[in-house]
Amino acid sequence: MTATKGLEGIVATTSSISSIVDGVLTYRGYNIDDLAVNASFEEVAYLLWFGKLPSSSQLSELQAQLSRYAPIPDELISQMKLYPKDMNTMAALRSAVSALALFDNQADDMSREANEIKTMKLQAQLPTIVAAISRLRDGLEPVQPKEGASIAENFLYMMDGKAPSETAVKAMDQALVLHADHELNASTFAARVTVATLSDIYSGITSAVGALKGPLHGGANEAVAKMLDEIGSLDNVEPFIQQKLANRDKIMGFGHRVYKNGDPRAKHLQKMSRELGERNGDTKLYDMSVRIEELVTSQKGLKPNVDFYSASVYTQLGIKRELFTPIFAVSRVSGWTAHILEQYEDNRIIRPRAEYTGPTNQKYVSPELR
Amino acid sequence: MTATKGLEGIVATTSSISSIVDGVLTYRGYNIDDLAVNASFEEVAYLLWFGKLPSSSQLSELQAQLSRYAPIPDELISQMKLYPKDMNTMAALRSAVSALALFDNQADDMSREANEIKTMKLQAQLPTIVAAISRLRDGLEPVQPKEGASIAENFLYMMDGKAPSETAVKAMDQALVLHADHELNASTFAARVTVATLSDIYSGITSAVGALKGPLHGGANEAVAKMLDEIGSLDNVEPFIQQKLANRDKIMGFGHRVYKNGDPRAKHLQKMSRELGERNGDTKLYDMSVRIEELVTSQKGLKPNVDFYSASVYTQLGIKRELFTPIFAVSRVSGWTAHILEQYEDNRIIRPRAEYTGPTNQKYVSPELR
Ligand SMILES: CC(C)(COP(=O)(O)OP(=O)(O)OC[C@H]1O[C@@H](n2cnc3c(N)ncnc32)[C@H](O)[C@@H]1OP(=O)(O)O)[C@@H](O)C(=O)NCCC(=O)NCCS
Ligand SMILES: CC(C)(COP(=O)(O)OP(=O)(O)OC[C@H]1O[C@@H](n2cnc3c(N)ncnc32)[C@H](O)[C@@H]1OP(=O)(O)O)[C@@H](O)C(=O)NCCC(=O)NCCS
Repeated sequence: MTATKGLEGIVATTSSISSIVDGVLTYRGYNIDDLAVNASFEEVAYLLWFGKLPSSSQLSELQAQLSRYAPIPDELISQMKLYPKDMNTMAALRSAVSALALFDNQADDMSREANEIKTMKLQAQLPTIVAAISRLRDGLEPVQPKEGASIAENFLYMMDGKAPSETAVKAMDQALVLHADHELNASTFAARVTVATLSDIYSGITSAVGALKGPLHGGANEAVAKMLDEIGSLDNVEPFIQQKLANRDKIMGFGHRVYKNGDPRAKHLQKMSRELGERNGDTKLYDMSVRIEELVTSQKGLKPNVDFYSASVYTQLGIKRELFTPIFAVSRVSGWTAHILEQYEDNRIIRPRAEYTGPTNQKYVSPELR
Repeated sequence: MTATKGLEGIVATTSSISSIVDGVLTYRGYNIDDLAVNASFEEVAYLLWFGKLPSSSQLSELQAQLSRYAPIPDELISQMKLYPKDMNTMAALRSAVSALALFDNQADDMSREANEIKTMKLQAQLPTIVAAISRLRDGLEPVQPKEGASIAENFLYMMDGKAPSETAVKAMDQALVLHADHELNASTFAARVTVATLSDIYSGITSAVGALKGPLHGGANEAVAKMLDEIGSLDNVEPFIQQKLANRDKIMGFGHRVYKNGDPRAKHLQKMSRELGERNGDTKLYDMSVRIEELVTSQKGLKPNVDFYSASVYTQLGIKRELFTPIFAVSRVSGWTAHILEQYEDNRIIRPRAEYTGPTNQKYVSPELR
């Protein structure tokens, strides 16, 4: 058997969480287009974890639990204050999520019940951690979560220390829904490989954050924002992109392992990007993005993925670029935890093989003789 | 295509680092039996990273570099002092390794040169971190690394604060050689999946530590020690194991995904275990282990793996059980980093598929109607 590079097309597990078939993405059988316009992020998280949408009372119970779990331990805040001010936000998030386990005395309780509680804790605490990282980078004190607010509202509130606009909350909530799960993407797969040794859920989420950090995965949204900055003006789009294509550089935010005819999430983010621009009376970022898409699609046949328009959405919401990938994690932790719970239900260690291509029949000789 | 559970037999990559063919394990073409009796751990680490055994001068240069990099940042020690005293050692190691990145301004430099430096730093600093965790758990100050000592000697020294015996250093060095690499084992695979998004080397090692923690992987050596404790006496081996087998419980330290006729590393650890017992004038642990092996092999056809005799080896070296899995990491980080460097050289994102088995065609209805 020869190696399948990047495991392209290899089916690594069964799963009943999300599916991608003929370019259509569903969560538990619900089309993402349906959920994006109708469901809140909390409903989607419940759906991913428990397999069905919550009743009104289940939803309020979940909201109450998420509120209760949102504060992070003081000891963790003290630790985070020792992080350097110019910290890489994803390295900081990875470290803080890992350290959360140290303050959870259920961390190594492998019962389904304990893992469901940790799932909700992680979902509640990631936004608090990310907002704290943002503030510590600015030399500010972290803000305590607000009781009773949704994840989207709370996150924006903890970041800025003031109540966000309704538009911003709505956009953030929809972005969270769109990023919540995506079948066996690289970070989810990293989480499943990690916990398939029967390691704990914090280990799984820590691995996932580390994988998401890479520019070929979640890191792409920050890279797109950098590119928009570099381009600077609508007029400069064409020469910039032509140069990139001529150099055979990768254009961030384009292409996908699974979608070859376009990412179904992109159109929703594109619409949000346009609407936010119109509302702000400045569609420059949106117009630049559309022009980039036209060029890359016509010349390379590559379509934008989830990370392309999210960059202009977040920028127009006034969010700092270094937070774009952490925000992806705030959403995707819902999917990561759902996949970890599923992995535990029917576990087997994930241990493929490598095809050896190195030298053979070597014999040790002592250093003086080498 | 249907799912291959645990990716058994799937070839995920080519690799020229280690190979397992017909039950024979080689590092870069050198049989592990040859290296176990002849090579030092530093020679083996060099071999894994650079593809050949070092000359005398290359070896002294490496030793000097490892010595220079061994101290960990004061800010990290301050952070670790905020970990709870009863911390899980692997959760602590995972958190500290992740946080190391925050204090390395080359953390996100993706050049080969920078990654080789980080490789040596990680190899040098993991023992320092593990020894510090051990001392902080005992309420003691961490001990600074000793200039010019080997990894094995330094580690034992930093743990106890006093010079280790020659026997202990030799046993530790050999154990490190035997654990250094093992093709695409679960933690190495977790590291490669993580960095294949082009995430940084610290992310890869953090994922690997998390994966190693699980009892189906590195966590097994600690579990074996617990079992030996529980059994307590040679006479109790038979009833204990018979009961376990009757309950169809897993016996830790037995079985392997790849080796079906025995793990070539086990015999070396078995020999060390016997010799340490004879030297201490107490072969009880060794005798119990042999009896367990006889029963499990004759009744279940399962052979001991690397984690079975290492438990009695480390116990006889006076090492606390909670450090067994971290010690595995101190060694395996050599292999993890070698695999990460190899992954970067010819990268493609690792993104398999899932076979969807859930409901389809669901339609959103509002919470009141559910
Ligand atoms: C997402 C991605 C990692 C998928 O990787 P993959 O499935 O291994 O893609 P492939 O390498 O098979 O791509 C096929 C070809 O298109 C090229 N290609 C893919 N994405 C490209 C991009 N964004 N810009 C330019 N060329 C690209 C590849 O270089 C390859 O060309 P080749 O055959 O000449 O080598 C890849 O498209 C990419 O790197 N995109 C940019 C990063 C990004 O936006 N990531 C977020 C994903 S949600
Ligand atoms: C190492 C290990 C994870 C390999 O997993 P794997 O390749 O998926 O093994 P399989 O599940 O295919 O094992 C085949 C059968 O042997 C059984 N088996 C494997 N290891 C066993 C053990 N240690 N004790 C009892 N039964 C065991 C399995 O339950 C399975 O039985 P089944 O067919 O009735 O379900 C597994 O052997 C194990 O859990 N060992 C104990 C933990 C350990 O020592 N890990 C360290 C490895 S270095």
